[in-house]
Amino acid sequence: MIADKMVGLVNNNSAIRMMFEEGKRLAAIHGAENVYDFSLGNPNVPAPASLNKAIKEILDEEESTFVHGYMSNAGYEDVRETVAQSLNRRFGTSFTQNNIIMTVGAAGGLNSALKAIVNPGDEIVTFAPYFLEYRAYVSNFDGVLVEVSPDTATFQPNIEEFEKKITPKTKAVIINNPNNPTGVVYSEETVKKLVAVMEAKQKEYGTEIYLISDEPYRELAYDGVDVPYLTKYYANTIVGYSFSKSLSLPGERIGYLVIPSEMPDYKNVFAAASIATRVLGFVNAPSLMQRAVARVIDEQTDIAYYNRNRELLYNSLTEYGFQCVKPEGAFYLFVKSPVADEKEFVNKAKEYNILMVPGSSFACPGYVRIAYCVAYETIERSLESFKDLAKNYDLI
Amino acid sequence: MIADKMVGLVNNNSAIRMMFEEGKRLAAIHGAENVYDFSLGNPNVPAPASLNKAIKEILDEEESTFVHGYMSNAGYEDVRETVAQSLNRRFGTSFTQNNIIMTVGAAGGLNSALKAIVNPGDEIVTFAPYFLEYRAYVSNFDGVLVEVSPDTATFQPNIEEFEKKITPKTKAVIINNPNNPTGVVYSEETVKKLVAVMEAKQKEYGTEIYLISDEPYRELAYDGVDVPYLTKYYANTIVGYSFSKSLSLPGERIGYLVIPSEMPDYKNVFAAASIATRVLGFVNAPSLMQRAVARVIDEQTDIAYYNRNRELLYNSLTEYGFQCVKPEGAFYLFVKSPVADEKEFVNKAKEYNILMVPGSSFACPGYVRIAYCVAYETIERSLESFKDLAKNYDLI
Repeated sequence: MIADKMVGLVNNNSAIRMMFEEGKRLAAIHGAENVYDFSLGNPNVPAPASLNKAIKEILDEEESTFVHGYMSNAGYEDVRETVAQSLNRRFGTSFTQNNIIMTVGAAGGLNSALKAIVNPGDEIVTFAPYFLEYRAYVSNFDGVLVEVSPDTATFQPNIEEFEKKITPKTKAVIINNPNNPTGVVYSEETVKKLVAVMEAKQKEYGTEIYLISDEPYRELAYDGVDVPYLTKYYANTIVGYSFSKSLSLPGERIGYLVIPSEMPDYKNVFAAASIATRVLGFVNAPSLMQRAVARVIDEQTDIAYYNRNRELLYNSLTEYGFQCVKPEGAFYLFVKSPVADEKEFVNKAKEYNILMVPGSSFACPGYVRIAYCVAYETIERSLESFKDLAKNYDLI
Repeated sequence: MIADKMVGLVNNNSAIRMMFEEGKRLAAIHGAENVYDFSLGNPNVPAPASLNKAIKEILDEEESTFVHGYMSNAGYEDVRETVAQSLNRRFGTSFTQNNIIMTVGAAGGLNSALKAIVNPGDEIVTFAPYFLEYRAYVSNFDGVLVEVSPDTATFQPNIEEFEKKITPKTKAVIINNPNNPTGVVYSEETVKKLVAVMEAKQKEYGTEIYLISDEPYRELAYDGVDVPYLTKYYANTIVGYSFSKSLSLPGERIGYLVIPSEMPDYKNVFAAASIATRVLGFVNAPSLMQRAVARVIDEQTDIAYYNRNRELLYNSLTEYGFQCVKPEGAFYLFVKSPVADEKEFVNKAKEYNILMVPGSSFACPGYVRIAYCVAYETIERSLESFKDLAKNYDLI
């Protein structure tokens, strides 16, 4: 007697999540140290010590009924102002608290943003490969997800196809930069091409087309690569951010939306997204964690740690004959499967106690995602298994 | 360019929330101590000291990547088991972790439950007066909220009308016990009548009708009154709980769903509600707070504090000539407006710096909700103003 929309989801639960459960099962059999679980984007770098210190200080210094109590649905005003000023310092923007809505992670923020703008039948364009939950989020509001097919040579957005996929029914475009699952970063040049298309289409159709930028990996960029701040390029941008990766807090569900004042319908969109936060049942972002991230707003995770992982895994896997675009951001490798059916490859890898996620979970079959947010030692220990796996496919 | 569904919500934002903002405005003018804000259910009793102590201990004792990390969407297994055992001790149930889903407050839980079971056009029955957000929650899934009109003599459910309102399209019934806004508690006798109707209708129509029991006020019951645990009376019950009131944590968004194994379609409903938690963007209940409430699972808020407030306010207001059913639970008085249009009464009260919420915000015009989760001293100081207000209406 469950809802029709849920039947498919129950029968075909997230492959990523299933792999997470599989990892726990294998660890129980073989010992955790002998299972190489590259399936989940669960940061293994601890949260900064300053974060836990901040939590304790808040509990000592601030009133319980304030710290644990209700506030405006958009979040504490001082926290929102702190977020705005931090963005301004880093990106030369000019936000205030009136541009920030604290959210239950980026997933909560994206759903509030979509609830605010999407009518049934509206089209939401995104670029494959993409985080498959986007499909569920868009479906929550009876929108239609429209995919732009992947450019597997570079995994940069296919601008020509993008242009063709925008119609008068296009309400929004979702991008994810740096990208999960490819690790690719969209350069300023790419962003300019992307928004030029959107500006032209807005004019052509007389519509507003929102650019929703999902940015949990913003801080995870390597080799000094620049990740453009999109509100500076396009007024109808909504940024969805999460502290899940930058402060290693994925379980805490804390993030924010940025809705710039330059947006033509700013006032209504901001109000709608704030109210959406309430009526979707989030009510507000977790209160103590709002106050905690504000106290450590300029802290960053240990990028050097992930970078060391990236270099070891990328260099080793390509040495063994696997093919992969070198990622500039996030903590994923998106590796070409040596056989057409990447699920077969994923199952074969399991025999070597290696867990990874099939690309079809990102609307991009023929590839696998390997999350390297694991201990460096895990990668070291896994290399023999990867080598054996490569031999199995005659890559070495 | 916001979504059609949001237009009404933006133009007519929650009266409760607007009153909250109004309270902040008046406090800035007259000083917080001279504004008697009875508008919001924001507990003023601090969280138990043991809760803050537990948070600190967790940060010292448990791994950062575990405490702040992802877990199964339904929540940490040990936390869910702790919740289950606590319920079993208190209510003689026999739950395990497989009956518990940790949620982003009761609001998050209710939305996950509705997502799990509601198809567009399904009818969800509830009893006026009710928390108006139910309407938004049901609308999130294109369900139709069906109201049973209030019995204003007792504010107990009108069983005869209830029976008539159940149709073959009825998918669920939402009750809120103890009740917001009336403070009324449904007795075992009432519950038995209610579920007898539902059992009969299930048989008559060959349908499953879920009883969703929204119970954030379960622990707030006075004079030793019993609040029946509904899974013991009806197998198709889903309980939505929140620690917002029992531990004074409304901002933290922490609660749980109970889905009993006796439910005929238990396996699918449990799976669907877990997945709904993910696809709605909650992902999981805030991780640190899950672990914290588990450590203090048998703690209670200071009921005596609220009881003292209840007695003072109820006795004073009825002495001044206001009419009100004496509440047995929660922390609200639901007072009859001395004039037919209770919004006029609410506005008049504002002139005396008294803030309360019109009953039309609970689908029950002609009444006002007065939340007494405030300092005892606030009630004491407000009494002269209430007396003047009563005089204004010639009640004294």
